[in-house]
Amino acid sequence: MTPQTTLEDRRASARDALERCQALVEPALKEAVGTLHPWPRRMAGYALGWCEADGSPAATAGGKGIRPALAVLGAEAAGAPEEAAVAAAVAVELVHTFTLVHDDIMDGDERRRHRDSAWKAFGTGPAVLAGDALFALAAETLARGGGARSGAAVGLLAAALRELVHGQADDLLFEDRPWTGPEAVTLPEYLAMAAGKTGSLLGCALALGPVLAGAHPPVVLALTEAGRLLGTAFQAVDDVLGTWGDPRATGKPVHGDLFRKKKTLPVLAALSASTPDSRELAALLSSPAPLTEATAHRAATLMERTGARTATLTQARTLIAAACDHLTSAPLAPGAADELMGLSEYLLARYV
Amino acid sequence: MTPQTTLEDRRASARDALERCQALVEPALKEAVGTLHPWPRRMAGYALGWCEADGSPAATAGGKGIRPALAVLGAEAAGAPEEAAVAAAVAVELVHTFTLVHDDIMDGDERRRHRDSAWKAFGTGPAVLAGDALFALAAETLARGGGARSGAAVGLLAAALRELVHGQADDLLFEDRPWTGPEAVTLPEYLAMAAGKTGSLLGCALALGPVLAGAHPPVVLALTEAGRLLGTAFQAVDDVLGTWGDPRATGKPVHGDLFRKKKTLPVLAALSASTPDSRELAALLSSPAPLTEATAHRAATLMERTGARTATLTQARTLIAAACDHLTSAPLAPGAADELMGLSEYLLARYV
Repeated sequence: MTPQTTLEDRRASARDALERCQALVEPALKEAVGTLHPWPRRMAGYALGWCEADGSPAATAGGKGIRPALAVLGAEAAGAPEEAAVAAAVAVELVHTFTLVHDDIMDGDERRRHRDSAWKAFGTGPAVLAGDALFALAAETLARGGGARSGAAVGLLAAALRELVHGQADDLLFEDRPWTGPEAVTLPEYLAMAAGKTGSLLGCALALGPVLAGAHPPVVLALTEAGRLLGTAFQAVDDVLGTWGDPRATGKPVHGDLFRKKKTLPVLAALSASTPDSRELAALLSSPAPLTEATAHRAATLMERTGARTATLTQARTLIAAACDHLTSAPLAPGAADELMGLSEYLLARYV
Repeated sequence: MTPQTTLEDRRASARDALERCQALVEPALKEAVGTLHPWPRRMAGYALGWCEADGSPAATAGGKGIRPALAVLGAEAAGAPEEAAVAAAVAVELVHTFTLVHDDIMDGDERRRHRDSAWKAFGTGPAVLAGDALFALAAETLARGGGARSGAAVGLLAAALRELVHGQADDLLFEDRPWTGPEAVTLPEYLAMAAGKTGSLLGCALALGPVLAGAHPPVVLALTEAGRLLGTAFQAVDDVLGTWGDPRATGKPVHGDLFRKKKTLPVLAALSASTPDSRELAALLSSPAPLTEATAHRAATLMERTGARTATLTQARTLIAAACDHLTSAPLAPGAADELMGLSEYLLARYV
């Protein structure tokens, strides 16, 4: 990707990469999910956006397939064979779907991608089971399809999940922390949480193919670190969308994160501004009463006035630039590395 | 173990084996759990019976450690090195604990081992997270500690989990099936469900060490099949305990499975007897009203009168005998094979 390309060119290239990777991965993903017991299979199909709760074809689109695309591009960048890329991509998409299903239970989120979340559609117990089935299937896919280095690949995936659990645990614990004062959640704490909760799996996505292909440790490390930074940026953009995003685009309620009083990056950035606006925001959020539409709108306006939206997007841009530095410093296949960087920018372009 | 040994000798030998295996495995298990985030670590410690919900030392005993003991004995029987036995045992105990935590959520069970179940003690969302953390830790333990064959070992564990999910899904679906008529759950359906839900992990426990040590496929197969049969027997005995067991011993309410109207093996056996007692039982269970203490007691008496308790224990004995046949037919190290068979009988002796 030369500097002369326009933003629109890059978006088109990212969309092309996503489509190409999806075409490569989806048959294997469908085959893997097809081996599940009919009930978890239906729930998995719903969570993957393939069908409605009754099993009929889905009326709305599923996820964008960013993680499996990162897995394919990471594998290609390290010169891995296609089988390794596909096994890695299938495993990563299964794990991602498993975490969405379980996270929605933990966070009590009722909506996901314009529809009921899985636990809302099928009940909590069945959704727990569906998540477990997806996780087991991911490990099985990697163990069986990963060849001689499958043990190392499963180790990498499991280590990413350990970090993910770490981040998710911190995120849940953040809920009980105060909004202000010495016990308040700091921005570095938030970024460490997001690196675990979102970054670890993206790092794993980029590195799995290279590990399966026996790439040199510095390449694996560079891709892992790039993915972790991308994931953290991704979470920052998600937080902006959760506060100011258009529900028609996000599939979630407007000001959703505010109504749930979630400690997101823009909220923490706004509170740390120490202006009259941030103090009014703290008072609104600290009140035991739930926010109304009017107070949520007010809170979003106050956050905007502290510059929190811009600060969060700037943070995301900085993280993506750091990720691209890791990618350019490693000896990667040029075409795939370019596609990777194009896709990284697309992650931010979801918002701007 | 010679035929001259008494039942008490065998029990003592089984207890010795359990203690020996626990001493071998517990340090590695504690080390693995110690690497978790403090919050899931505390929940995992609670679920493993090491501490109370507030983190203080446990007042009651944890599980009997049957699965890790099977893993150690299976490894020893196949001549595997001690590291392989320990890695297998730790992984199996972590997975077992993960399934207990998640199954209690799915089944709505509030009590486990004389205490609140994990979701009751910590909340549903945190318990989902604790289970996920245990699963990820199990995969990581096996992937990192399993040496050259860790990929195959993780594949075996994941395949066992696929069967476990299959069995759990069937068990949940059984709840909506009628008690009588052509749609009723049959005994073979029940046994297939139990082989998946309980047998698969015991089969995996016995086979993991041998797989890590590169044992010949027929040995792995014999141990897998023996474990599956043992697990099915174990479930049958559990069902008897869930109906007639002494709450002081089981840690669960008396007639617990009846109050929950669970389709257990003794209930299905009683209903299939086609006597006036089984018809009265069907009427009690089919009524939309919950059972009272009096009607639950009556149901247990009716079941007893159909011979269902004896039939279920006979079924368990038959399954254990078949398991021992698999063990004697495989070329195993004699000492470990004897200990395995002694332990198998102990599983039944929990009840008689």
